[in-house]
Amino acid sequence: MSVIPPRGFRLAGVHCGIKRNPAKEDLTLIVADAPAVAAGVYTQNLVFAAPVALDRQRTPSDSIRAILANSGNANACTGQRGLDDARRMTELAAQACDIKPEQVLVLSTGIIGEFLPLAKIEAGANSAAQRLDTDEAAFVAAARGITTTDKSHKMAARVIELSSGLVRISGMAKGAGMIGPRMATMLGILLTDAALAPDDAQQALSWAVDDSFNCISVEGHMSTNDTVLLLASGAASRSALQGADLAAFRQALLEVCTDLARAIPDDGEGASHLITIEVRGCATRADAHRIAKTIAESALVKTAIAGGDPNWGRIVSAAGYAGPQFDPAKVSLAINGHQLYRAGAPVPFDARTVSESIKSARETHVVLELAEGDAGIRFWTSDLTAEYLRINTEYHT
Amino acid sequence: MSVIPPRGFRLAGVHCGIKRNPAKEDLTLIVADAPAVAAGVYTQNLVFAAPVALDRQRTPSDSIRAILANSGNANACTGQRGLDDARRMTELAAQACDIKPEQVLVLSTGIIGEFLPLAKIEAGANSAAQRLDTDEAAFVAAARGITTTDKSHKMAARVIELSSGLVRISGMAKGAGMIGPRMATMLGILLTDAALAPDDAQQALSWAVDDSFNCISVEGHMSTNDTVLLLASGAASRSALQGADLAAFRQALLEVCTDLARAIPDDGEGASHLITIEVRGCATRADAHRIAKTIAESALVKTAIAGGDPNWGRIVSAAGYAGPQFDPAKVSLAINGHQLYRAGAPVPFDARTVSESIKSARETHVVLELAEGDAGIRFWTSDLTAEYLRINTEYHT
Repeated sequence: MSVIPPRGFRLAGVHCGIKRNPAKEDLTLIVADAPAVAAGVYTQNLVFAAPVALDRQRTPSDSIRAILANSGNANACTGQRGLDDARRMTELAAQACDIKPEQVLVLSTGIIGEFLPLAKIEAGANSAAQRLDTDEAAFVAAARGITTTDKSHKMAARVIELSSGLVRISGMAKGAGMIGPRMATMLGILLTDAALAPDDAQQALSWAVDDSFNCISVEGHMSTNDTVLLLASGAASRSALQGADLAAFRQALLEVCTDLARAIPDDGEGASHLITIEVRGCATRADAHRIAKTIAESALVKTAIAGGDPNWGRIVSAAGYAGPQFDPAKVSLAINGHQLYRAGAPVPFDARTVSESIKSARETHVVLELAEGDAGIRFWTSDLTAEYLRINTEYHT
Repeated sequence: MSVIPPRGFRLAGVHCGIKRNPAKEDLTLIVADAPAVAAGVYTQNLVFAAPVALDRQRTPSDSIRAILANSGNANACTGQRGLDDARRMTELAAQACDIKPEQVLVLSTGIIGEFLPLAKIEAGANSAAQRLDTDEAAFVAAARGITTTDKSHKMAARVIELSSGLVRISGMAKGAGMIGPRMATMLGILLTDAALAPDDAQQALSWAVDDSFNCISVEGHMSTNDTVLLLASGAASRSALQGADLAAFRQALLEVCTDLARAIPDDGEGASHLITIEVRGCATRADAHRIAKTIAESALVKTAIAGGDPNWGRIVSAAGYAGPQFDPAKVSLAINGHQLYRAGAPVPFDARTVSESIKSARETHVVLELAEGDAGIRFWTSDLTAEYLRINTEYHT
């Protein structure tokens, strides 16, 4: 499936000089031909960046015309000047596209605590506005413009048939660690030509993010800039989706978000494994989430998988300090389909076989079963390798 | 100051064959000449080891005669057989020392999910009972008998003058990571010749642990076996401490616990820095603890210090997702006395000078100031290096 812009959007990605390498795009401009419905989900970090503060005030909305996003500088921890700079970015995008500043959303990702190079962004916005296009190359350039330490840009799409006709959802994301050498954050942008009421757009996005972007972790360090935006042009139909059409749209949106979310720990800094952690049999989904996240963020679990070691003790003990109450005597665990622990006691297994199943595949699948209820979750994380340490140690402010 | 057993205790550490290297002690026996007051503080992990289950039932107490501790096997996640084995350990110690099984506490640390080699422990307990002594060499051998991946044994002591005369507090601890190659856990044993009421002993220990052992982290993975025990022989005075004497004892106990606790992240697996994190200006001590712990457990903060990088953005952003509410515009941060961030905005600083101050010292001192109240805390952690990954990756179950 090709990832092309849904109808009603034009995109560009350019190099404006924030990144040193001139071959790397660092500024992305996305323009809606007409006012679009917009929804946003943002970091819960108390220390949030200026663009988060600005976008949060402007979503949900029915009149957004553009997103201007830069990589290489997070505009975070920059005080009042940072807020002024984020507002200035909306003015630069508005001038370049002949729209109003209040119709613009902004995204920034990169180093914390430095001020934005506004002259570069102004020139870049004007250049990007000249290159806006509706083809796949434009979408790719835009996806590249938001990357930082990512090994590659991340895209996903679905086309679904609704009663009103075909609807396209195309998304891009970035992220490989909270902070790479001079970089930060997870960002996601979803574009659709579906027509959506602003509240429906916001609800669909919040719901989809909860089971996708909120179920991933590289090292558990929540960024100051995390943002996922959904823009709906409405070009695919005259009236807002309802009923079964809206439900189908939400499901497809979740699929696109899940594809993008999984791609982030899969590209986690230094990662050699994508680890899927399924936690089942919990009293509540929140319990399952907390247990899965605690397992996913244990350096001991992550190093065990990196080493190809089916160390179930590290996983079970991480569940035990996650917080939710459960009966340890009813816990079972499987890795890659091999049962290692059942009803609170070890099961004899061939360590070499299980180790080989970890080493020979990019993905490792952990299933932890409790006996407290019917709630469960899937969570994705990366393993922890010497390369992660190299990336995050060998940097100097 | 020499670390010798307080009056009323005899100790031994022997090799019984759980560890492969015959030069390494793996069994520690501590015997009180008469029934001693005992208090305990234990892991809060739901998945707790058999010895924790047993000791928890037996403390506080006024009639403990011995502690038998083994390293190399945690007796954790071992089900009913593990509980039976822990009880059997108390019988072996009782036989060797001619006391009652219910007067014995047991400690285990090491690999999770394997059963104890009871024949080895029986022979070792008998051998240890023959070697019990009251000198510093006996204390050192006992301290060595509880170590696993520790680079060295950990001891601390204080002698204080009370109205009733001199009182000695001598302690030992082990720990370098939740789980090393085949190892686990933090253990601490405090011995004193002070006379204490059991409830006073328990309160003093819980209070001292809260500001010492509960304020350290290597990678934040809570063990199944963490235990700190206090035994008071009462040999130094006839009646239990009260009033100013009890307060002085508590303070000295805190000092010994703090010395031992700091030694654990200082010896953290692969650590090149001991990091002290002071968080001040919080509404409550619990808020300060949660913020300090979150900073201490961020892989990004730990790798920054390992690399000598004064990366304040990683520290401030970790505080922001810790949970407690605070005003980000009133946050200030200093590293090794250099102010890097003041009232929510960056302060210009010479990165080379601050980096050199980190690289040239074993200890790094981080002070984070909020403006929410008067509560604060000190917390200690280790940095995260390639050596930690090597230790925890290159192991196979």
